[in-house]
Amino acid sequence: MNEFTHLDQEGRVRMVDVTDKPATDRRAVAEGLVHMTAETRNKIYDQTVKKGNVLETARIAGVMAAKSTASLIPMCHPLSITYASVDFYPEGMSSIRIRSEVRVKGETGVEMEAMTAVSVSALTIYDMCKSHDRTMTLTDIRLVEKSGGKSGHFKRDSVCGD
Amino acid sequence: MNEFTHLDQEGRVRMVDVTDKPATDRRAVAEGLVHMTAETRNKIYDQTVKKGNVLETARIAGVMAAKSTASLIPMCHPLSITYASVDFYPEGMSSIRIRSEVRVKGETGVEMEAMTAVSVSALTIYDMCKSHDRTMTLTDIRLVEKSGGKSGHFKRDSVCGD
Amino acid sequence: MNEFTHLDQEGRVRMVDVTDKPATDRRAVAEGLVHMTAETRNKIYDQTVKKGNVLETARIAGVMAAKSTASLIPMCHPLSITYASVDFYPEGMSSIRIRSEVRVKGETGVEMEAMTAVSVSALTIYDMCKSHDRTMTLTDIRLVEKSGGKSGHFKRDSVCGD
Amino acid sequence: MNEFTHLDQEGRVRMVDVTDKPATDRRAVAEGLVHMTAETRNKIYDQTVKKGNVLETARIAGVMAAKSTASLIPMCHPLSITYASVDFYPEGMSSIRIRSEVRVKGETGVEMEAMTAVSVSALTIYDMCKSHDRTMTLTDIRLVEKSGGKSGHFKRDSVCGD
Amino acid sequence: MNEFTHLDQEGRVRMVDVTDKPATDRRAVAEGLVHMTAETRNKIYDQTVKKGNVLETARIAGVMAAKSTASLIPMCHPLSITYASVDFYPEGMSSIRIRSEVRVKGETGVEMEAMTAVSVSALTIYDMCKSHDRTMTLTDIRLVEKSGGKSGHFKRDSVCGD
Amino acid sequence: MNEFTHLDQEGRVRMVDVTDKPATDRRAVAEGLVHMTAETRNKIYDQTVKKGNVLETARIAGVMAAKSTASLIPMCHPLSITYASVDFYPEGMSSIRIRSEVRVKGETGVEMEAMTAVSVSALTIYDMCKSHDRTMTLTDIRLVEKSGGKSGHFKRDSVCGD
Repeated sequence: MNEFTHLDQEGRVRMVDVTDKPATDRRAVAEGLVHMTAETRNKIYDQTVKKGNVLETARIAGVMAAKSTASLIPMCHPLSITYASVDFYPEGMSSIRIRSEVRVKGETGVEMEAMTAVSVSALTIYDMCKSHDRTMTLTDIRLVEKSGGKSGHFKRDSVCGD
Repeated sequence: MNEFTHLDQEGRVRMVDVTDKPATDRRAVAEGLVHMTAETRNKIYDQTVKKGNVLETARIAGVMAAKSTASLIPMCHPLSITYASVDFYPEGMSSIRIRSEVRVKGETGVEMEAMTAVSVSALTIYDMCKSHDRTMTLTDIRLVEKSGGKSGHFKRDSVCGD
Repeated sequence: MNEFTHLDQEGRVRMVDVTDKPATDRRAVAEGLVHMTAETRNKIYDQTVKKGNVLETARIAGVMAAKSTASLIPMCHPLSITYASVDFYPEGMSSIRIRSEVRVKGETGVEMEAMTAVSVSALTIYDMCKSHDRTMTLTDIRLVEKSGGKSGHFKRDSVCGD
Repeated sequence: MNEFTHLDQEGRVRMVDVTDKPATDRRAVAEGLVHMTAETRNKIYDQTVKKGNVLETARIAGVMAAKSTASLIPMCHPLSITYASVDFYPEGMSSIRIRSEVRVKGETGVEMEAMTAVSVSALTIYDMCKSHDRTMTLTDIRLVEKSGGKSGHFKRDSVCGD
Repeated sequence: MNEFTHLDQEGRVRMVDVTDKPATDRRAVAEGLVHMTAETRNKIYDQTVKKGNVLETARIAGVMAAKSTASLIPMCHPLSITYASVDFYPEGMSSIRIRSEVRVKGETGVEMEAMTAVSVSALTIYDMCKSHDRTMTLTDIRLVEKSGGKSGHFKRDSVCGD
Repeated sequence: MNEFTHLDQEGRVRMVDVTDKPATDRRAVAEGLVHMTAETRNKIYDQTVKKGNVLETARIAGVMAAKSTASLIPMCHPLSITYASVDFYPEGMSSIRIRSEVRVKGETGVEMEAMTAVSVSALTIYDMCKSHDRTMTLTDIRLVEKSGGKSGHFKRDSVCGD
């Protein structure tokens, strides 16, 4: 794990050639946080159908973004992902944790899809609540787990305890 | 600045109706950080043409993402933006700060475009360097400045000192 | 209202030239029905947060489709729409009526955007419920109202009585 | 065939996980009708090259829409379809029947692709003729046949008799 | 007309800021050639409905590509074009000339839209005929006319004599 | 190699049915030229970081276009390509040669992806330099090599000598 595989010998950008890699089951999990005021967080989690819609909209945006990752990230391979989920967990008084899991049977992994799903979900929460709170911050977006590729299993602490 | 304008009285998601708002000059600036190991940061900023390509690729991805914001964020209005920039600043020993400015003449603002440009640029840096460092984290993505709309000028501290 | 404006004298397909038309406020409303079994309809409208998600997903898909109409319909002009809504009304024992309203300030109307929003919302309801009921049918998708263009106000009976 | 597979236990929207399903040959056929005035129908079928272009444009729009189904329907899996056709049949005095067949080798079926192809073809016929006839209606869009999946062969009467 | 306006002082890529430019009527015309065997050309122009479809498909692809130029060309501004046409002219014994005209009311011109329409039309002709003739070549794709911007009227010889 | 496989017996446009073809390793190489003034060429190749950015931007645009080929070319199958590269070679005093190689494991080939990557790279060079030189011409875009399909190996002279 010590090369920049997206740059060739001359430093030119390239898509990694995965033609000769076997298609295996691959899975990636990413997480991120949206920090906001406690009041904004309360409104989002208010026990009514209404406010639940902020998170449902963010969930759908995240799943759709996972599917369009290759059109956003220049050197990403297009992949026919077989699963994408986005879930939300209240954290502390004023944060929402976002967790995305993506799966595929393919020659390359889906960590960018999971990272993209978390990021676009977080942007959507921001968009849905920005008229109320413009100081929201997207933070701690990172890979939590990755399995199925040649580079072996990668895992680090998840706050969601999944 | 105290409503959830994307939810109607019944809590249903809706695009805000901006038909009757005047088209004015609008500008938004967003920022974010990518944290990484000091070694990864050094490699990106290595004074050769080669490594410069990581940031050029991230810059292009960010500008293109600004243009496709409305297809990513469900309730965002489509806008014919007239300017988008993405710039990078080394910060501390092991971070890169990303700053995006977007402009438009329109009925609604471009803060989501600037936030999206920063996020997708950050995801691209992650993608270009992930074979080397999977612990990179995207953090502190937030609006820094916004002008031109009815809600007035919004500004908070920028680390880039712009 | 008696030409095929998308075909020229020789019958060649063309985008209508609207460069010289003034930008005016335009609005279009379209409607459609999804027929299903009474049991499927009941499950969708079940008074729990859960089932409400079928319609929220369909609403978001419809609004997003309104924004991408020009990439779906070959001769449609790209438009920066300023408003799009999608609403649902139970009808009879086993149907759901979908109604979409779209607005723009532009040189050409938004009837295709409203028709597309209704159609994609209906397809999404089908997709969300197809594991339960594959006999659902999309029907009666039509323009209900159109205003703001040179061809004058168009209106026909809406079942929603809006 | 009695669950809402796109909703989990808590009613949250999710993409169905098909990672562990085998890739099999799958095929789906959908149909729909566009109702119009007899005069409009006659003009479309007029035996000249000119008017044939309405249906060719609708056919191309339908095939292209089949390919972009996963970006329109939120919980649809992206699929590399191996075939898509769209055909037209005059029906009665004032209707055109649209029939689409889609095929894939994959973990999940292509019924949404066939339904989407029919719907977007129908919308395109509407768009191409709307300057002449704004009362056109899209109707009876439904699945006609589906084979290749675990849920077995589904078939209902097709008016096209194919 | 002597700067690289897409590169800043430091050589960084950027979208040109056109926020402060007035919206004026702009028009651009581009042309290109597809060379092929005389036999392939004859088949395309064969006086039957059948073969006409190669050019109708290429025309539609070109018009649709004009609309998606900003998602293909990294530093292009998104524009709501008001007109796009693609036409074909037989040339010599074994070529087809493609000509596209695009119009907009906007802060920046549409030459990239016209160039893109010609290129994608040419690629589509290649795709439709490649099973018959793999030696086809796309050539002489260039701007022919451009008007409406600050840089004044640009015009060079068109073979189409328009 | 003597049929128009995208047209059926009646001359109707159709996507070729490749469902029953085996997935094999496929590779295609395409090339093209951008002609410009010698001065423009010198500026692009100027040995500074600055001007290198024209070609890096064109390279990224070409790779991204390879991934979206199926959404541009109406009858192209969607493919999850496993590799795409775009390279540039100075030629003579005033041209740049573009060469793209694309690979996939699939039921159909990737020649359209390689042709599209070259074309969009060439368009991007034009866009980046057009403020300096509007007489640039895209020319000689053609398939150079194709392997892996039933139609056998296709190869013609490449100027790049690869």
